[in-house]
Amino acid sequence: MSDEMGASVPINGSDRNGYVVDIYPLSSYYFGSKEAIPFKDETLYNRVLRMKSNYDAHGLRTCVEAVLLVELFKHPHLLLLQVRNSIFKLPGGRLRPGESDIYGLKRKLTRKLSLNEDGGEVDWEVGECLGMWWKPDFETLLFPYFPPNVKRPKECTKLFLVKLPVSQKFFVPKNLKLLAVPLCQIHENHKTYGQIISGVPQLLSKFSFNIIAS
Amino acid sequence: MSDEMGASVPINGSDRNGYVVDIYPLSSYYFGSKEAIPFKDETLYNRVLRMKSNYDAHGLRTCVEAVLLVELFKHPHLLLLQVRNSIFKLPGGRLRPGESDIYGLKRKLTRKLSLNEDGGEVDWEVGECLGMWWKPDFETLLFPYFPPNVKRPKECTKLFLVKLPVSQKFFVPKNLKLLAVPLCQIHENHKTYGQIISGVPQLLSKFSFNIIAS
Ligand SMILES: [Zn+2]
Ligand SMILES: [Zn+2]
Ligand SMILES: [Zn+2]
Ligand SMILES: [Zn+2]
Repeated sequence: MSDEMGASVPINGSDRNGYVVDIYPLSSYYFGSKEAIPFKDETLYNRVLRMKSNYDAHGLRTCVEAVLLVELFKHPHLLLLQVRNSIFKLPGGRLRPGESDIYGLKRKLTRKLSLNEDGGEVDWEVGECLGMWWKPDFETLLFPYFPPNVKRPKECTKLFLVKLPVSQKFFVPKNLKLLAVPLCQIHENHKTYGQIISGVPQLLSKFSFNIIAS
Repeated sequence: MSDEMGASVPINGSDRNGYVVDIYPLSSYYFGSKEAIPFKDETLYNRVLRMKSNYDAHGLRTCVEAVLLVELFKHPHLLLLQVRNSIFKLPGGRLRPGESDIYGLKRKLTRKLSLNEDGGEVDWEVGECLGMWWKPDFETLLFPYFPPNVKRPKECTKLFLVKLPVSQKFFVPKNLKLLAVPLCQIHENHKTYGQIISGVPQLLSKFSFNIIAS
């Protein structure tokens, strides 16, 4: 345990509520690459059309995203995927109609962060839901509450804490970059990371991190 | 249940994780007033001096604050105290040295929101910790994570969800105003509500609210 997060912090012991998360050094993980995964390259207009016809067919679109943490320089870093050297994303994606949150998130994590082949599959440990964001319409603004005066929101994004084991092999599609970004760089940095990611440090604030040295 | 929050929202049933909170209409509560409570009227400079000498004597200052919700116009509103028609505060305050979070929060809630007399005391239902904010020094900037490179933070503020019963009598000190503010007005409104309060809607985003009609 680092002395920064260690016993020198006199938080009242009996009330910690058990929100302690073990995190492991970035160096405990292996990072390889795999084939690129296709992205929909479309205009905003075409995207909105696609969302609308999806909504008409399947109703509310649900996305599930993972908060994965590693230790680097003695404090927690969030794993982010970067698309085309610009947009940052939490690993995850859209549920299939009728698919459960947990099952869908595991499927998406395998697709984006490990090998899909049978046998070697990672069993992701999906933990608690940290937060949810709602889109009242097909545009881009998100709200961290069920939007008032909106009967039928169009999209819901749910964030889950996913606990990494002591070691694991990641395989990232060639057209994505995986980055470990410190919480202090993300917090309130809407411009670079967007609404959802920039709020993650706050959603994690009730946890204390038990950094396990390698 | 309001139709806004009701069965028309097709969230995948099996994965709700049980984060449902019952909330009751503002009109189910009685609001009276009681004697003013003294405030320290001091300059920022004197406040910093007082914080420093407190820190030297007792170490980390811990504040506990309550997130209390009521229904108004069919959506959740947060109860906030207003001091001198300007500063907004969550009900709560500083723990005594050695005092537990739960005990201290109940004491503060009684002091600020109900009658202190024996017998009629409210038993506040303190629920889960929603988040924590840290101050690395005696100035005012807060971080939702243990500040990196800081060995001894000076203040920690913990937010707890406090579940209100179906009815209750509130008694508010004459020099404080109690307000019910909708989450949509608070979200990201740092300027008016400050860092901690403006982040509350996000911290609550994993919950769904079961609005119980009167
Ligand atoms: Zn950092
Ligand atoms: Zn934001
Ligand atoms: Zn509202
Ligand atoms: Zn903020």
